[in-house]
Amino acid sequence: MGTQLTKQPSELLTIAIDAMGGDSGPSVTVPAVLDVLAEQTDVRFILVGQQDIVAPLWQQQHSPYADRLSIHHTTQVVAMGERAQDALRKKKDSSMRVALDLVKAGVAHACVSAGNTGALMATARFVLKTIPGIDRPAILSRIPAHHGHTHMLDLGANADCTAQNLLQFAMMGSVVAADLDGVQRPRIGLLNIGEEDIKGNELVQEAGKLLQQSTLNYQGFVEGNDIFSGEVDVVVTDGFTGNVALKTMEGLASMLGSTLRSEYTRTPWRRLSALASISVLKAVKKRFDPRQHNGASMVGLKGVVIKSHGSADAYSFAHAIRVAIVEARKGVPTQLGQLLEAQV
Amino acid sequence: MGTQLTKQPSELLTIAIDAMGGDSGPSVTVPAVLDVLAEQTDVRFILVGQQDIVAPLWQQQHSPYADRLSIHHTTQVVAMGERAQDALRKKKDSSMRVALDLVKAGVAHACVSAGNTGALMATARFVLKTIPGIDRPAILSRIPAHHGHTHMLDLGANADCTAQNLLQFAMMGSVVAADLDGVQRPRIGLLNIGEEDIKGNELVQEAGKLLQQSTLNYQGFVEGNDIFSGEVDVVVTDGFTGNVALKTMEGLASMLGSTLRSEYTRTPWRRLSALASISVLKAVKKRFDPRQHNGASMVGLKGVVIKSHGSADAYSFAHAIRVAIVEARKGVPTQLGQLLEAQV
Repeated sequence: MGTQLTKQPSELLTIAIDAMGGDSGPSVTVPAVLDVLAEQTDVRFILVGQQDIVAPLWQQQHSPYADRLSIHHTTQVVAMGERAQDALRKKKDSSMRVALDLVKAGVAHACVSAGNTGALMATARFVLKTIPGIDRPAILSRIPAHHGHTHMLDLGANADCTAQNLLQFAMMGSVVAADLDGVQRPRIGLLNIGEEDIKGNELVQEAGKLLQQSTLNYQGFVEGNDIFSGEVDVVVTDGFTGNVALKTMEGLASMLGSTLRSEYTRTPWRRLSALASISVLKAVKKRFDPRQHNGASMVGLKGVVIKSHGSADAYSFAHAIRVAIVEARKGVPTQLGQLLEAQV
Repeated sequence: MGTQLTKQPSELLTIAIDAMGGDSGPSVTVPAVLDVLAEQTDVRFILVGQQDIVAPLWQQQHSPYADRLSIHHTTQVVAMGERAQDALRKKKDSSMRVALDLVKAGVAHACVSAGNTGALMATARFVLKTIPGIDRPAILSRIPAHHGHTHMLDLGANADCTAQNLLQFAMMGSVVAADLDGVQRPRIGLLNIGEEDIKGNELVQEAGKLLQQSTLNYQGFVEGNDIFSGEVDVVVTDGFTGNVALKTMEGLASMLGSTLRSEYTRTPWRRLSALASISVLKAVKKRFDPRQHNGASMVGLKGVVIKSHGSADAYSFAHAIRVAIVEARKGVPTQLGQLLEAQV
């Protein structure tokens, strides 16, 4: 406890962590939580998972954060490859499910999980429900861009979308961009293709009309390169196109990285030149480090749910936790509800 | 003529060049043609365009290739921003239209244009028609990948597609990959998204079934990162998703390039380290240089039509010409017709 002044537990923001989720489970989630505890004094955590696995990683008796950290024991774990419907039906005492239950019960203000995306989305929808006026939640992530980053959604929750879905995604994106980046009226772009006489598919045509009639700061159609150009703050698309675009970026970035590595190690002189360039290479790597952008928001739910990459390390998982903290503090779901009411 | 043995004109492959097309017109197309003439002895060219503009760039009287180069005079030019239907109706003596007419008439074996994509596609469909069994032509391009490159289509000709269209795209891709790369049975992947319990949209589900029943070497669904992974030789998708993926790559590559540039010029020491890394940076740049991959195929037509980037320089336009030469030599449209017949 120490001598420092601490806030009352009731004043603290509470984040529920699916401690067992992800490829590495508690060996990643617990150190990440300890890092964020050290850096932020007005947040408390509930580690949801198996007591006998989680507790030893935390060393309760010695931790200076004992008053801001607790374990909520659960007996089940959702496997990374498990079917969403199975997880939902058979794993009612899983760390994932209980972390969401804590948000639903108002015990926690947000939940973070590195578990199976399909199961997390299905369980979150079942437990928390969507905000009135939102038909389907979407997955939103920040993508590095010339001006910092762009918020893009949907990245894969909804393979088939209606124009109405896309309008709702735009509202979600607008609220998140405003809250996370402090942009007054985030500029919204609708992803389309730009060849002459090919004005995109029917879906985006219809969605474009809905967006023009909305109160959002809609900028019109954008193309794939505008994800990075800084022309807009939010890029809206269906989950199929969004997921393909995201995976395409990941694939290209990885190929560029491995090409640089193989070229720099080809000869002894080149190895030496890599040393001379180390500060540049580090700066570039840092800029595009996916770990820095970890933490996708599952928006549209009556509660803040942040999905971390399954393969996240502690540094990366801590980033996802920070996204949860900001969204919970700003009350993204409440703000989204207000925006939807204002549209009526 | 010189003293070298030359083939008879009838034995030579003839390529019609839309000399006026692209942002720079003849100042790019004519030097590119002269480069390819110097490097390949069994090809002849017809430069289609305004005699008084094209001829001075060629200096006919001095050219050692006078016997393999001719000008076909035309009076009109399709503008880069012109509507496809206007170009088709009102520009019957445009360099683009006449270059296609020469292919249709059997005077040329292929045509290359850096002109307006929409107009070229519409005019090519009108003049050449599609191969029996192909409902819609598609735009195919080579994308740099771990194993060299991947052939990807459709990149934007068809925003809304049916499963049958995707099957036909797969056949086209298979023929082009086999002909251009000498791959025996090109591995075909259908672009999809891979989240658990989200099995992609209805279109790809249906197309996947059709592909499984086909005689093609179908490998199943692939994700965006597999464009680069070397898992497949051909990636098939609808023109909306394909165009978004292509533009996303271009945007990301450009942002990576500009980040490297700005980091390397930030301090005098870094400028120096860039010099030490010059061979690496050149090698990486060359690998991803879009000029090296210039020349998209408009496949599915009864004739070889290659589209160059509008902003191509002579080096890049020459690449597009080489693609046309290979496709014409291999008889891609004939082979595609044979494959389609074999499927029945």
